Amino acid sequence: MSILIQHVTLNGALCDVYIEGNRFKTIAPHIACAADCVLDGKGKAILPGFYNTHNHAAMTSMRGYADDIDLFPWLKNHIWPFEACITEEDVYQCTRLAILEMIRGGTVFFNDMYWFSVAAVRAIEEMGIRAAVGRLFIEASPGIILEQNRKENEKLEAMKASLSSRVILTYAPHAIYTVSGKTLSMIAEQAKAGNDFIHIHASETELEVANSYKDHGLSPIAWLDTCGMLGPRTILAHCVHLSIDDIALIRQRECIIAHNPTSNHKLASGRFRFHEVVQEAGCHVTIGTDGVASNNNLSMLEAMKFAALSAKDQSKKATAAPANLIFDCATRKGAEAFSIHAGVIEEGRLADALLVDLYHPTMVPNHHLISNMVYAADTSCVDTVICDGRILMDNKVIPGERDMIISAQRTIEGILGRLTTNE
Amino acid sequence: MSILIQHVTLNGALCDVYIEGNRFKTIAPHIACAADCVLDGKGKAILPGFYNTHNHAAMTSMRGYADDIDLFPWLKNHIWPFEACITEEDVYQCTRLAILEMIRGGTVFFNDMYWFSVAAVRAIEEMGIRAAVGRLFIEASPGIILEQNRKENEKLEAMKASLSSRVILTYAPHAIYTVSGKTLSMIAEQAKAGNDFIHIHASETELEVANSYKDHGLSPIAWLDTCGMLGPRTILAHCVHLSIDDIALIRQRECIIAHNPTSNHKLASGRFRFHEVVQEAGCHVTIGTDGVASNNNLSMLEAMKFAALSAKDQSKKATAAPANLIFDCATRKGAEAFSIHAGVIEEGRLADALLVDLYHPTMVPNHHLISNMVYAADTSCVDTVICDGRILMDNKVIPGERDMIISAQRTIEGILGRLTTNE
Repeated sequence: MSILIQHVTLNGALCDVYIEGNRFKTIAPHIACAADCVLDGKGKAILPGFYNTHNHAAMTSMRGYADDIDLFPWLKNHIWPFEACITEEDVYQCTRLAILEMIRGGTVFFNDMYWFSVAAVRAIEEMGIRAAVGRLFIEASPGIILEQNRKENEKLEAMKASLSSRVILTYAPHAIYTVSGKTLSMIAEQAKAGNDFIHIHASETELEVANSYKDHGLSPIAWLDTCGMLGPRTILAHCVHLSIDDIALIRQRECIIAHNPTSNHKLASGRFRFHEVVQEAGCHVTIGTDGVASNNNLSMLEAMKFAALSAKDQSKKATAAPANLIFDCATRKGAEAFSIHAGVIEEGRLADALLVDLYHPTMVPNHHLISNMVYAADTSCVDTVICDGRILMDNKVIPGERDMIISAQRTIEGILGRLTTNE
Repeated sequence: MSILIQHVTLNGALCDVYIEGNRFKTIAPHIACAADCVLDGKGKAILPGFYNTHNHAAMTSMRGYADDIDLFPWLKNHIWPFEACITEEDVYQCTRLAILEMIRGGTVFFNDMYWFSVAAVRAIEEMGIRAAVGRLFIEASPGIILEQNRKENEKLEAMKASLSSRVILTYAPHAIYTVSGKTLSMIAEQAKAGNDFIHIHASETELEVANSYKDHGLSPIAWLDTCGMLGPRTILAHCVHLSIDDIALIRQRECIIAHNPTSNHKLASGRFRFHEVVQEAGCHVTIGTDGVASNNNLSMLEAMKFAALSAKDQSKKATAAPANLIFDCATRKGAEAFSIHAGVIEEGRLADALLVDLYHPTMVPNHHLISNMVYAADTSCVDTVICDGRILMDNKVIPGERDMIISAQRTIEGILGRLTTNE
């Protein structure tokens, strides 16, 4: 498979981009060669796609189901009873719905943590996006991993050899308050042995931090370090409440923070200190949307704007979190976090990209394209999405979208039906 | 002119909507009558359009021109030199660009304050949107109104009788730090005599408040009251820094606050206390985008999400600023603020509306349509826009859009050319 994109704008200049297999082969002013597919890039700019580093994709089923509610009643009275009705088929359907939405917004990769992950893998493989899928760990009681997790993770393990190069398996213990130190230590060893990534919620709420001090005499970050969990292949989701020592430890262990500004604001969890943690302390930061239940969409364009504006507001500095840095966090740094050789439009890199419409009113004028992407664009500006050398959306069309939407609607009606029966 | 929208979803039920002239005439399950234009509403919901209560529309010329800079160097080194090169034709072109963007996002009204307002009126009249256009007042020295403003306001006055019912003229003194008390008092009297609206920036930054205490011994709000400026037809843009007494005064005088969450975050101006000012004290609040230079788009959908999430974050309450309230501020309350009999889809009201695509991935599932609008949707969900009984966008198509975009691009290149010559 080869793709030739003609007359497209890259870094302010017109060029042609030739993709062979899953990589950018040639980028030059004029390329004269045949290709299986030729795209007209006139009036469009090519940019890296987005790498969403924290998601629970199948939670699309709960979009708008329970908003404006405090965290604990929200979980106990709404989210958990709903989740108790979800089947493997639901996860497949709702992950497809999530992927449709992500493709529309130019996202080419997401880091997922959810139930029935085998079904998520099926949706990911079919739809052509990249993803890291977690072996989920939640404990019934300290040291006893939920049977559902254990079985699902065995199935994932059995599939491992047959997965495409687009799918990465991670270890995804939910959080320190749902997984014991003993199990965390075991996971850390397994991840180290397999050179695998770890994905965990960390320091999201004040309550989590207070309980960690009560239970372990340590902050969540220090406790994770004690369990051997911190390293350059560890993705810490949230990190809203960090002490000075936590920041130093994250820096020293070269962990990756997945910052989820929209979710943190919506749940009133607190403010990530972007300027201090990233610009002053130099921690690695990437951007995630979190799941739809706490966002309520999967737009990385919106997440970038929230990240930038939240950083300015929190630090009281209009100069904090400038557009180029935020864009880099959402693209190159996200790819790098998972050792994906992508996130930059460059010969030899994996061919992940989006085309934006330069004649869309919010992209005019074009004084600064990256500023327009971070501060002005929304998903309506995204025209075409390419992942791993395959066109996932062409001129705003995703093949089969309407049928997938209708299937997802039916599936979610089914969940609501079972939920009513349970009540 | 009549429009019949068939099989559209309104408040969860299917119905037909018949528009005659500029008002909703009949809303019923089935309407059998001829119409000049029949729209298929299947798979779409009808909702009120958005009323953007603070804007400087023609600042689209500066989208992405100068970001991530502190307020004063931003104004002095970037915004003001750029504005010094702007002509009446530029304002016409860039207001058209702004209106295109607003229509795409479902906005049917904006409250404008800018230079060359006669050119803005021309764009508004041609493009069919509603607007309130300000007689701008800025002083060269205390008591001496800029000659440019004086002349422009005379021209506006001369046009007044010929304006369509879509256009309202307001008094728009820029702020207390650019207009003296003497002039503010004169404006207050003129506005009162004509039963006109007043539109002014108020309590946007800490510096403005500090200087007001220094110069007048009063907060900006108290000073405006002394000048006779506060009443139910006064729109106070921003109100970020309010004392308890300011809040009581705004409540007592029944002023309208135009809250601009995106701009306040981007310029790190501070946080509007939505929960305290609106939900506890009961002040009237509407939503604005501010101009593109400090936002950098005109999406009311995005502004609603920033308003809701900022309120939750600021008050540390996930329950603050619920979706229905925020949607109401962006629609009905915005229309009411300007005595426009619209903002609700109801027989007899002015026919302002948008249709959203219920099969767009971010609108699925539809547990709660208003939550989806506030928290999930972006402008890509907006399919059709009707203002004053006229279709401004049909199925995402705005007639003449591409030509207007190209004209705006040329115009902005012209400004940059003159700017370079000036340097």
